[in-house]
Amino acid sequence: MPELTRMTWREVRDAGRSAIALLPIGSQEQHAAHLPMGTDTMLAEAVVDGALARVDDPVVVRLAALPFGHSPHHLFAAAVSLRASTLQAVLADVLDSLAGSGFRRVLVVNGHGGNDEIMRLAVKEYALRADVALAACSYFSLGDGSPPGHAGKFETSLMLAAHRDLVRPREPRADVTPPPLFAYPPYPGLTVERHGEWARAGGSTDDATTATAEGGADLLEDRVTALADAIRAFDAATRATHAEGEA
Amino acid sequence: MPELTRMTWREVRDAGRSAIALLPIGSQEQHAAHLPMGTDTMLAEAVVDGALARVDDPVVVRLAALPFGHSPHHLFAAAVSLRASTLQAVLADVLDSLAGSGFRRVLVVNGHGGNDEIMRLAVKEYALRADVALAACSYFSLGDGSPPGHAGKFETSLMLAAHRDLVRPREPRADVTPPPLFAYPPYPGLTVERHGEWARAGGSTDDATTATAEGGADLLEDRVTALADAIRAFDAATRATHAEGEA
Amino acid sequence: MPELTRMTWREVRDAGRSAIALLPIGSQEQHAAHLPMGTDTMLAEAVVDGALARVDDPVVVRLAALPFGHSPHHLFAAAVSLRASTLQAVLADVLDSLAGSGFRRVLVVNGHGGNDEIMRLAVKEYALRADVALAACSYFSLGDGSPPGHAGKFETSLMLAAHRDLVRPREPRADVTPPPLFAYPPYPGLTVERHGEWARAGGSTDDATTATAEGGADLLEDRVTALADAIRAFDAATRATHAEGEA
Amino acid sequence: MPELTRMTWREVRDAGRSAIALLPIGSQEQHAAHLPMGTDTMLAEAVVDGALARVDDPVVVRLAALPFGHSPHHLFAAAVSLRASTLQAVLADVLDSLAGSGFRRVLVVNGHGGNDEIMRLAVKEYALRADVALAACSYFSLGDGSPPGHAGKFETSLMLAAHRDLVRPREPRADVTPPPLFAYPPYPGLTVERHGEWARAGGSTDDATTATAEGGADLLEDRVTALADAIRAFDAATRATHAEGEA
Amino acid sequence: MPELTRMTWREVRDAGRSAIALLPIGSQEQHAAHLPMGTDTMLAEAVVDGALARVDDPVVVRLAALPFGHSPHHLFAAAVSLRASTLQAVLADVLDSLAGSGFRRVLVVNGHGGNDEIMRLAVKEYALRADVALAACSYFSLGDGSPPGHAGKFETSLMLAAHRDLVRPREPRADVTPPPLFAYPPYPGLTVERHGEWARAGGSTDDATTATAEGGADLLEDRVTALADAIRAFDAATRATHAEGEA
Amino acid sequence: MPELTRMTWREVRDAGRSAIALLPIGSQEQHAAHLPMGTDTMLAEAVVDGALARVDDPVVVRLAALPFGHSPHHLFAAAVSLRASTLQAVLADVLDSLAGSGFRRVLVVNGHGGNDEIMRLAVKEYALRADVALAACSYFSLGDGSPPGHAGKFETSLMLAAHRDLVRPREPRADVTPPPLFAYPPYPGLTVERHGEWARAGGSTDDATTATAEGGADLLEDRVTALADAIRAFDAATRATHAEGEA
Repeated sequence: MPELTRMTWREVRDAGRSAIALLPIGSQEQHAAHLPMGTDTMLAEAVVDGALARVDDPVVVRLAALPFGHSPHHLFAAAVSLRASTLQAVLADVLDSLAGSGFRRVLVVNGHGGNDEIMRLAVKEYALRADVALAACSYFSLGDGSPPGHAGKFETSLMLAAHRDLVRPREPRADVTPPPLFAYPPYPGLTVERHGEWARAGGSTDDATTATAEGGADLLEDRVTALADAIRAFDAATRATHAEGEA
Repeated sequence: MPELTRMTWREVRDAGRSAIALLPIGSQEQHAAHLPMGTDTMLAEAVVDGALARVDDPVVVRLAALPFGHSPHHLFAAAVSLRASTLQAVLADVLDSLAGSGFRRVLVVNGHGGNDEIMRLAVKEYALRADVALAACSYFSLGDGSPPGHAGKFETSLMLAAHRDLVRPREPRADVTPPPLFAYPPYPGLTVERHGEWARAGGSTDDATTATAEGGADLLEDRVTALADAIRAFDAATRATHAEGEA
Repeated sequence: MPELTRMTWREVRDAGRSAIALLPIGSQEQHAAHLPMGTDTMLAEAVVDGALARVDDPVVVRLAALPFGHSPHHLFAAAVSLRASTLQAVLADVLDSLAGSGFRRVLVVNGHGGNDEIMRLAVKEYALRADVALAACSYFSLGDGSPPGHAGKFETSLMLAAHRDLVRPREPRADVTPPPLFAYPPYPGLTVERHGEWARAGGSTDDATTATAEGGADLLEDRVTALADAIRAFDAATRATHAEGEA
Repeated sequence: MPELTRMTWREVRDAGRSAIALLPIGSQEQHAAHLPMGTDTMLAEAVVDGALARVDDPVVVRLAALPFGHSPHHLFAAAVSLRASTLQAVLADVLDSLAGSGFRRVLVVNGHGGNDEIMRLAVKEYALRADVALAACSYFSLGDGSPPGHAGKFETSLMLAAHRDLVRPREPRADVTPPPLFAYPPYPGLTVERHGEWARAGGSTDDATTATAEGGADLLEDRVTALADAIRAFDAATRATHAEGEA
Repeated sequence: MPELTRMTWREVRDAGRSAIALLPIGSQEQHAAHLPMGTDTMLAEAVVDGALARVDDPVVVRLAALPFGHSPHHLFAAAVSLRASTLQAVLADVLDSLAGSGFRRVLVVNGHGGNDEIMRLAVKEYALRADVALAACSYFSLGDGSPPGHAGKFETSLMLAAHRDLVRPREPRADVTPPPLFAYPPYPGLTVERHGEWARAGGSTDDATTATAEGGADLLEDRVTALADAIRAFDAATRATHAEGEA
Repeated sequence: MPELTRMTWREVRDAGRSAIALLPIGSQEQHAAHLPMGTDTMLAEAVVDGALARVDDPVVVRLAALPFGHSPHHLFAAAVSLRASTLQAVLADVLDSLAGSGFRRVLVVNGHGGNDEIMRLAVKEYALRADVALAACSYFSLGDGSPPGHAGKFETSLMLAAHRDLVRPREPRADVTPPPLFAYPPYPGLTVERHGEWARAGGSTDDATTATAEGGADLLEDRVTALADAIRAFDAATRATHAEGEA
């Protein structure tokens, strides 16, 4: 798996003509008492590295993950958060740089819900500015993925599979009634945000005690497969137009 | 239906304690050869006004619609588009003003796909800044709504129902192979944007010739019902915390 | 009167070669106890629509009014206000879009004093960026117009003429000594702003009890005539250079 | 005349309680073939220094002039121009600093038409943020001043009076038909800007050959008197509220 | 060595009272034909990790490195560069987050010359906003460090010591006369920048062929020692004021 | 010595082909009880004017000094300070204007430590945007200059030489233990900033009572010589590439 950070610039220029550049983005933010701050970054990387291990064609040049995301809602506990405008600027600059360095296809893979709108907006904006093909996804919602919650069963399962040593002992989650509006909107398709809701919810969306490493391994396999398939689909859809010399 | 533009400032202050302020947002952009530039604004207003006619409780104070949205991808034809940063600023300022004028609950109802991420981001950001409860939706994806396409059967049907006089004669849509990536992503959950794709697709996503006023009336009824239900659900979820003196 | 929101994009493109695009801008802000929040927007629209009914040549394409303006000084009561930088961005984007959509002549007509400098600055800036001819005016100061005050005799008269149902009962204005500095500068040509002056002045500049619908009708006729004349004068001055194929 | 640049910080703090801080702003921009780039700055300073020599009470602390203004329309020839957003930032920062350093009354005196809207906007904005009283004027339009033109009879006369050594030989101005729209709007109260108009007009608004030093001396006396009167009027209007310990 | 990404938020909050948070920043940019894009990031991390292995007291919480820096001058070849304003925003947000998460002492360690001014400016700015003690350094100029050049003997030596597998075969550097002005200013203390100079210099400042792994090991030891000493000195200087409960 | 403010635009255009444009930048900020607010500006100008009196070739066009700098750390006493982003914008605009007006070589000479990083960053950024050669220096650190301190022996000596009438009686400086971290970093090469440190240090870095006019004259001569030499060196290094028609 070619990593941009380990390549020389000439290797980058050579690869850019046909390869896909892949940027993982994550976060550093509270994940309740049992998961580490970097959970979202580590899981995005785990899914990305799993998928890239299976994809030989197209060539994918993986960038170092952006370890910080947009997490203002977790600052009540602890987070290293970029403002929305900052993350927008970072993504715009990275996309601009990649195009300027010769890449014509870029994929952003996200591990943190709070980055999702900003990431999708970034690729939409950049496609207007340069003759490139861009894709973006959050690893958890690709394919038939479902909302991952936060620091609950989903993420805990995956961390048990990917970084078991970093999962601290779990305690049952205190009942939160009603459940937090951001995660359980009162009507489908309605985004609802109430001030102070993350603190009221105790920093997580659901109970993590039933998560198991085995369940996590299945989930991880599922997510890795989905991302590998998505990469191949993106390649197929754009190879003719944006991988030089191919049709 | 109270309209903010017709109220005095004392009426606004009085209403703000318990009412929900509702801001419709739309766009001015090409909608193929048969629909008008303001289609998204008109449809958002049609759904909003239909829903508000049915909702007596809670009181909803409707603002004048923001007639311009984020439509850079339609400037190849014609559009009056706000940059992403501008629309973000407008929404932040409006939310700030509404909170400053006494409202504690605000709902944004959107009619244009290109505004969707920016709108959802705006309500997330603002909920961190003030003790308010905010909601946002695109009228087309509320409930079991599905992607509306652009200037195709969905929007044409609705316009036949809501503004029949503004629908020009339709011609069959030329075949676009492959279909535009932004509307038909090659993998579920993957956002894909390719430079020049809107021009290649001829400005619409699907054929509009089979749209009928009758089908449009059913769709409109469905969307109006969904929004009315969503307003009631938002009210129920936030009345205890953000409508003063009630529990 | 062609309205951009009701036109198809091809009609917009066709019109842009010779027509003038006209953007009304207003505000939503306190207008004392007897006038509605949207007074400035409604009056700008009343004058614009009156003038356009009289101007056949040139063709003028009217945009939907921007219902929100720069009203931070009214937030002490109630307003939906855009920051100065936001309104600047909105106007820049709208002008950019109109030029990009084919218009070569644009006129902005303003109904709110607080927008005046921002609007004039916007047209100056944009004329440097594109080969266009731009004009801007506040409806109240065109020709021999005089300062309109705020929520006083001038605006109340016009609202009695244009929207009598929205004018609530008036009470005599309490004496404010000295009169507010922003409206009665101590030296001609000197702009003076004192913190808290709007609240001290009770939200208006002069007494509204002597306003009549008849006086308002005369004022409205006067303003409509002035704007119609200004449009014709702008057309005459720029037709040779910016209405394609004409001289 | 106390100059801030020559005062110690304790003298500044002491003065701030009752004095007025005065900031002259100018420009560096083409002034046809006979006047220097710094004409606007020099004339603002000449009027300011003349007025301050006559005003003993109130105490006025004069700042160093901002030598650069907003002159993008003169870059076709030569200028050192700040963008509008930059000049806005400079003025906001200076006002913020002066308030933070203890001044409660500030006056901005401008010598360049292109700064006018930005300056007036700046004082309006700042009065909302701090408990201060602010004033702003362009020296040429104070009192019964009239539009000064650019590099024509008005400015040339004043420069002959104030800096005769810097006025180069004048040649008659070539006829410009029609006269430039920015200086001769086709309807009173209408701002009209046409792309390329400054170059077409040859960089000036009217002929300078009839300007004389005697006429300039009269004009200068008139402007100095007007500014001195305006300073006294601003003082009288704000002394009770913003000069500590006085009433 | 505690790593923030592996800690839970409660561990972060507990550490913040007395620990120093350390952020490494680097770049992704061309480093001639023989060094990888991520050289600056890797070397900053090598020095940081070496130093932290030797410092037991104070506790230092290491953040994930920011892998991207300000490298617009390398985009002529290949780079992933953040604009200056973006990097400023990232650093401001990270510092803000760290203070908000409880840290009172932060150290930024930089590996890329192009980040240097921005980093030092960031810590100066932030110290004005919160009651914290901040430090910043570029690893190469700490103590008696000298200018590292770019992709020359200094960096190549260090990479041979730290990541020998990533150093490709070196060829003698073509003569560049005169040497690039940015690296060899014509007068001490004068920063000189000439357009196109990096391309003219072939992307490096000096010949790398004489670099050896042994020399690199000595350099690395020297830099590690300097950083360890600097951390202890920063701790000693700020422990009394910014490490709670200690004196 | 040609001064831009006194030149006509044609003289500017003529000079730009081969001359160097020189912009002095300073500050207005507290300089303890004995030095004036404008010390940094006056000293930059004294050094610049001294150097230019000795340099006949190349021609140097001197701009009016920017009298305001980045001094947020002095606002606790008194200052007129531009935010970092404002000063960046001013310098970017001035450089852009100078290039647009025909200059191909620009030198910025700074008198205030707080401007240093921003100035160096500005010239680096601008050299990427236009085919120019730029230089920047702080007058005090040119050649073998050493840190000037603030309002201490160095600046007081120079002011005694250059503006003796503006130096007030000095009192011995109270002992500050430990000395301020910003001026006496605990490790060489480490920038350390602690909140509140300027107030703790009483606004200066060292005692000024031993400063003499004679010592100041020597220092001034030294700085003038260094700047004159630096100008000649910059000219020599860039004459072939950026002074048209010369080699």
